[in-house]
Amino acid sequence: MPRVEFFPAGKFTIVDESTLIFEAAQKAGVHLALPCGGKGTCKRCLVSVLSGDVVRFEHPPEDSPPSVVLACKTAIGQKDCRIQVQEWDFTNYDVDESYDFCDKKFFHNELLKPLVLPCILKVPAPQLDDGKSDVDRVNGELAKIVQVSSIHWPIAVLRMLPETLRTEQGRMLTLVYRSGDHAHLCAIEDKLDKPIYGIAVDLGTTTVSVALADLLSGDVVGIASGYNEQIICGEDIISRIHYARTQKYLLEVNSKAISTINRLISRLIEKNNISPNNIYAAVISGNTTMMHFLLGVTPEYLRLEPYTPAFYTLDYVFAEEIGLSINPHAIAYVSPAVGSYVGGDITAGILCTDMYNESGLSLFVDIGTNGEIVLGNRDFLFACACSAGPAFEGGGISCGMRAIDGAIYDIEFNEEGEMVKLDVIGDAIPKGICGSGIINILSKFLQRGIIDRSGKFVENAQNPNIKREGRKARFIFNTGYEGLPDAALFVNEQDIENVLRAKAAVFSAITTLLEFAGLTFADITKVYIAGGFGKFLNIDNAITIGLLPELSYEKFTYIGNASLMGSLNLLLSEKARTLQAELASKITYINLSALSNYHSQYTAALFFPHTNENLFPSSIKKITAYRKMHI
Amino acid sequence: MPRVEFFPAGKFTIVDESTLIFEAAQKAGVHLALPCGGKGTCKRCLVSVLSGDVVRFEHPPEDSPPSVVLACKTAIGQKDCRIQVQEWDFTNYDVDESYDFCDKKFFHNELLKPLVLPCILKVPAPQLDDGKSDVDRVNGELAKIVQVSSIHWPIAVLRMLPETLRTEQGRMLTLVYRSGDHAHLCAIEDKLDKPIYGIAVDLGTTTVSVALADLLSGDVVGIASGYNEQIICGEDIISRIHYARTQKYLLEVNSKAISTINRLISRLIEKNNISPNNIYAAVISGNTTMMHFLLGVTPEYLRLEPYTPAFYTLDYVFAEEIGLSINPHAIAYVSPAVGSYVGGDITAGILCTDMYNESGLSLFVDIGTNGEIVLGNRDFLFACACSAGPAFEGGGISCGMRAIDGAIYDIEFNEEGEMVKLDVIGDAIPKGICGSGIINILSKFLQRGIIDRSGKFVENAQNPNIKREGRKARFIFNTGYEGLPDAALFVNEQDIENVLRAKAAVFSAITTLLEFAGLTFADITKVYIAGGFGKFLNIDNAITIGLLPELSYEKFTYIGNASLMGSLNLLLSEKARTLQAELASKITYINLSALSNYHSQYTAALFFPHTNENLFPSSIKKITAYRKMHI
Repeated sequence: MPRVEFFPAGKFTIVDESTLIFEAAQKAGVHLALPCGGKGTCKRCLVSVLSGDVVRFEHPPEDSPPSVVLACKTAIGQKDCRIQVQEWDFTNYDVDESYDFCDKKFFHNELLKPLVLPCILKVPAPQLDDGKSDVDRVNGELAKIVQVSSIHWPIAVLRMLPETLRTEQGRMLTLVYRSGDHAHLCAIEDKLDKPIYGIAVDLGTTTVSVALADLLSGDVVGIASGYNEQIICGEDIISRIHYARTQKYLLEVNSKAISTINRLISRLIEKNNISPNNIYAAVISGNTTMMHFLLGVTPEYLRLEPYTPAFYTLDYVFAEEIGLSINPHAIAYVSPAVGSYVGGDITAGILCTDMYNESGLSLFVDIGTNGEIVLGNRDFLFACACSAGPAFEGGGISCGMRAIDGAIYDIEFNEEGEMVKLDVIGDAIPKGICGSGIINILSKFLQRGIIDRSGKFVENAQNPNIKREGRKARFIFNTGYEGLPDAALFVNEQDIENVLRAKAAVFSAITTLLEFAGLTFADITKVYIAGGFGKFLNIDNAITIGLLPELSYEKFTYIGNASLMGSLNLLLSEKARTLQAELASKITYINLSALSNYHSQYTAALFFPHTNENLFPSSIKKITAYRKMHI
Repeated sequence: MPRVEFFPAGKFTIVDESTLIFEAAQKAGVHLALPCGGKGTCKRCLVSVLSGDVVRFEHPPEDSPPSVVLACKTAIGQKDCRIQVQEWDFTNYDVDESYDFCDKKFFHNELLKPLVLPCILKVPAPQLDDGKSDVDRVNGELAKIVQVSSIHWPIAVLRMLPETLRTEQGRMLTLVYRSGDHAHLCAIEDKLDKPIYGIAVDLGTTTVSVALADLLSGDVVGIASGYNEQIICGEDIISRIHYARTQKYLLEVNSKAISTINRLISRLIEKNNISPNNIYAAVISGNTTMMHFLLGVTPEYLRLEPYTPAFYTLDYVFAEEIGLSINPHAIAYVSPAVGSYVGGDITAGILCTDMYNESGLSLFVDIGTNGEIVLGNRDFLFACACSAGPAFEGGGISCGMRAIDGAIYDIEFNEEGEMVKLDVIGDAIPKGICGSGIINILSKFLQRGIIDRSGKFVENAQNPNIKREGRKARFIFNTGYEGLPDAALFVNEQDIENVLRAKAAVFSAITTLLEFAGLTFADITKVYIAGGFGKFLNIDNAITIGLLPELSYEKFTYIGNASLMGSLNLLLSEKARTLQAELASKITYINLSALSNYHSQYTAALFFPHTNENLFPSSIKKITAYRKMHI
């Protein structure tokens, strides 16, 4: 059997002849990215065969060197192989997030009632005459705090009871989870001042964020975010479902979700010097497919008609059941989903708005790899989803990256149309372009006549940054930066097309949903924009490229990562949890693909800002103004 | 460090100097019996030191050979040792029990409603228009069968759902446990005709019995019983609590309870050729201390004033939490206790009676190593416990053994007072004396003038079987049996004293409880005798020795192992479970040791049949009749 060695890692494995390279890599513990889920369509899992023989089932992109092959569609031959790969180190892209948008809305209006309630009890001493057991006396004290008909004692907790109860003369800390009429005792402690934490998780398709909160004070201790390790198994949801079609690969996708969350937990606990054992609660929100992956449940039937999820909601799971690196007896709460592609991230997210209280019509748009739209008011709420792809999170773009230090978030031109400045996060050497950056850049390109409304570089645009090689053109950013090879940072027409498709998916979802509801843009009084853009999102530019509808500026509110902030509210507030359950049952899920006009709406939106100029009068004016003057 | 080798097993270990021999044996995996729990008082953990040096902290019985030492009070010295031990093989004493007393009382009067309910569902196919998830549709069908407000899905079950649901077009078998308003889904299966079993367990101090039942038909498949492996750690409850005073030894006592149950389960599943995975429910009954050991919870505070148990009852535990070798997701139900020394074996046991329904006064006596008494009627129920020791289960007697093939259960004398026949179970070569045997034998001894009412051999009794050596006397049974060494089977005065103490404990508990209730023997209309005696118990002889009160014979009913039969009812019948919970809260636990007259009652009962002859007029007449004629 051939031996396959991977460079530069130096890891190797022995495999059967005809094993695919990516499978050999997995076996050797080498993580290769498979954005399309291994279908051979994205042509991005490129590796170089240094020695040995391989059998190619599909060809790499035309201009690749001869040694380059697709790892997902190339098999190991009879001989030993040496293969050069580009491995991810996800921790390189992890960052701490600020608490700018950390609105603990519900907690402001009620007592702190976290998911797992820390209760300090003073349990009376045992008496010969009443004969009450230790459990009886603890339950008696708990009954004064939580009104339930039964309390479940896991044996591990019961085993600690006799000694814990007698260490501090009956004073002890208990951690209780309540589910309806039933309570579950997660832990008991004789250390009364033990710090107790919880985590809120937004499990996004591309980006995962974890917030760590003190359950005793309600304070947020830290927020960390990073790439979802699952992107190795497919960039969008459908690719990942395809990837996870066997039990073995399902487990892999599952474990990557868990290891991503655990990686971010590690960052938070190391930074704040706390023990994972002190984390007793987790609220996890994500789209419906992500929740299936989180629990290791096949999402296969989500992609086949009638698109049936295995579950929308579960009352609770235990941290150790899913492998979270926190206290094994911690309770994990999975935000309820409302449709096959509208998940708990949305039911958590709209908690950060007031749309369900107001009489006026609100539009909630969560821009991520999976885009979700909610339209409604206090009387009704419609929700739908669309697949935007990862362009707005720095994926699917040649030089795309997360919005971290080194990401270009804007570009400045002088009156002559020459690029004079790159705005880079952290004022660092530019390394790539983030999601808000690509929006701002394309808006400027349109306004400066660098690209046309179909997303192609304008033939006669006299910009020194545009490089043409045959029929291909790109705009190069990094000219003049020391230490950066020329032409390392660019946007090409394929990148622009990816953004065009992404914005068309979101915008056409909005128009289709409005049409379904018999409403128009004029009816909208408020637009909530959610997503991981951070402070660099420019609403104006997002309107100019046609991602968002052209409404008066004061109607827009950017609320940041609503899924994460909603999850924080759920972690800390009982009111939020009750409200979320109500909203989840109130929201009507609309399956866009079942609506006949979605496809034509999508096609109409594949143009900057839109084929229908009446929808974007000011944007059209802006785009044409400069060109009229200069071209 | 010295090396210690144990013979005949040939197992060895390396230990620190000064390690006690029994600890070295444990380390080497050699099981030594420590009837007193390692206190050095019972002098029965004798081993022979073949070579090496040891340090004796206490002396073995006077007549022991010089090489014999107490394993619990002798330490390894500096040199390597070779030690001869007598190891138990518990399986040698395991037997199948008949179903003679297997009264599925409640099941006769209601539909079969086992602890874990097997439900075959026909789940509707998913629909695009209602968008129900797999869980929604299963819960919808379950709601038609079990009325609960929430159903808990363990992730392991959820993971199987999408495929299970689609294998038989929505037909599937579910196994559901209901606790109040809450249900727990133990398993789902696409094999609709999968056999489903449950077990009922009587976890006795000395003897453990397991019944295997088919949960679909309610039929009992088999019953097996054997010694509790915990007897190695102490013969009675107090010795075992003493033994388990550190976490390490607590875990040992705990694991011996589990391995005893698992050993009997193995016997049943091998015999009946079923898979342990098909066992989904367990009801376990035992005294309060046993239940603490079962769950690995320290019983330390049960022996210290105010004798507080950690728990009386728990809603449920999972089989895998306690290590039962059945389906890991099976539910284990622990019978509720009512007092520090009156446990779930009694609340299960009285289900086999009608005492809680009747207006007349009933007495329930469960004779085991821990004796329990319940006195009452439909209006009140008083319960108390006493420590009888294992004499009635074949323990604490030089030649005691379980009531299995080879056990002497009775003895016959001719008119001349000569022993003419031994009645042996299975008509086998006698190997020992069982619990009912010792009762029958001592009753005959009394009636034949072989022992006096204080339990001593009568000085001038001219019986050829009595052998005297100095001040010690014994009655030898096995004269003339081929292959048995002379004098191998006997009863000595120490044995008789142990029985005297045991019967005094039980009888004085009865009288003290009656006195407490302001009642007399004349008020009793019915006496239920429970225990593992089997068909060889002779009520008449039990009265003659003063174990049971002298009431007219028709008032007595022997109901066998009521704890096991009650547990079977609990396994199969919801009505039994509801009734047990009601009874457990209705029973008043009386702590005998807190009553001033218990000790004097006990002392008064240390005489055959009793110091107060008025309580046993017929027995006294029987005892004196033969003596008047012959002596």
